[in-house]
Amino acid sequence: MNQPRKIRIVLIETSHPGNIGATARAMKTMAQSELYLVKPRVYPSAECTARAAGADDVLQQAVVCDSLEQALNGCSLIFATTARDRSLSWPVHDPRGCANSIVQTHAEDSVAVVFGRERSGMSNDEIEACNQVVMIPANGDYSSLNLASAVQIICYELMMASQTLAEQPMVERDEYERLATHDEMEGLYDHLIETMAQVGFYDPEQPKQLVRRVKRLFNRAQLEQTELNILRGFLTAMQQKIN
Amino acid sequence: MNQPRKIRIVLIETSHPGNIGATARAMKTMAQSELYLVKPRVYPSAECTARAAGADDVLQQAVVCDSLEQALNGCSLIFATTARDRSLSWPVHDPRGCANSIVQTHAEDSVAVVFGRERSGMSNDEIEACNQVVMIPANGDYSSLNLASAVQIICYELMMASQTLAEQPMVERDEYERLATHDEMEGLYDHLIETMAQVGFYDPEQPKQLVRRVKRLFNRAQLEQTELNILRGFLTAMQQKIN
Repeated sequence: MNQPRKIRIVLIETSHPGNIGATARAMKTMAQSELYLVKPRVYPSAECTARAAGADDVLQQAVVCDSLEQALNGCSLIFATTARDRSLSWPVHDPRGCANSIVQTHAEDSVAVVFGRERSGMSNDEIEACNQVVMIPANGDYSSLNLASAVQIICYELMMASQTLAEQPMVERDEYERLATHDEMEGLYDHLIETMAQVGFYDPEQPKQLVRRVKRLFNRAQLEQTELNILRGFLTAMQQKIN
Repeated sequence: MNQPRKIRIVLIETSHPGNIGATARAMKTMAQSELYLVKPRVYPSAECTARAAGADDVLQQAVVCDSLEQALNGCSLIFATTARDRSLSWPVHDPRGCANSIVQTHAEDSVAVVFGRERSGMSNDEIEACNQVVMIPANGDYSSLNLASAVQIICYELMMASQTLAEQPMVERDEYERLATHDEMEGLYDHLIETMAQVGFYDPEQPKQLVRRVKRLFNRAQLEQTELNILRGFLTAMQQKIN
């Protein structure tokens, strides 16, 4: 698993301490650790720590700031997040576009993504302190994302962007089982058709169609050898029962 | 804003009522509404409603079930979610691949995404009742995503996929064939096991292993109805031949 680009997550005047803890957890699941808190209403607190659920280290390193300016100090690329359309003169990114911009930014340029208050979001002045805007697509009738959920989506997209061109995560099998070969599959099909004929399951009008359907099914499944053996064992048992 | 493909979100034995509410909220922000709860520890509850924060309608429509079977009734494409690598012989999707598969599934085929318990996730048996596995990429040292956050990411990807899809022509299958539903598949397994017993193809020492292997094979193949009918017709022909 590639490490994602590290960014600063900035929360402005968070009301509910649980949301700060949940944000720390969301960040840590996606391998992010730099949390900046601008004038949190309550911090630290037991509720915050409880909701962090093991992401205490992110909380311990969190930087509490008196102003957004202070939190953004040293940052070069700064995204404001908003859940709704605004009349802004910036182009608006979706989270994927935001993440793609971030991973293309030089490693020495610090990046921040800023999240506003639970109820009122970011003020226009605060948005204008940023370089870019990211809007998370949402239900037009109910766009009220939880703060930590919004952070989760941005950090998830960064994780995904860091894996660009990486192969789909293929889970390793416990014990490798060899897949059936083409000729073994042909053997299965012969056996199956033979047994189908023996039990009278055959539409003589359309034998070709039946064979084609059965082949398509099992080819799609990509049988392992054990599975092929089970099927052939079953067919053999059937034939012995009949004879 | 396009409406995303509607899916069933299934939560298994959720411990914390707050997580059910937060899940309802996460779903509603992404325009999803079909919540199924398999044996929730506490439901309904004040904490659940509080965390839903205005997504009460999703909670009110939620279907409480006694078993996973019941929750999956009628579904054709079923994803199991897992946060960690497991020894499985399925290919594993990331959330984006999962969403892309879902939006390409015919509108008449019901889709479910299943989420396990907060601490222990899904059992192997539960995963094997599904067709596909989706793994949310995460920090290898701390992959403990909050339940509602995991739901948020899947629903977010569906929202994104529905927007991408709008820009692309939809690939139509040559002829649409309805996929077999979960309950139809259960019917096939019962029929298969019954026939296997009748012909004496059964290792009485390891019946469970055999059944599991067979289910895994056919779940992976995602049978169309015609294919299921072929298999059942073959089994019926066998039984008639024996009797």
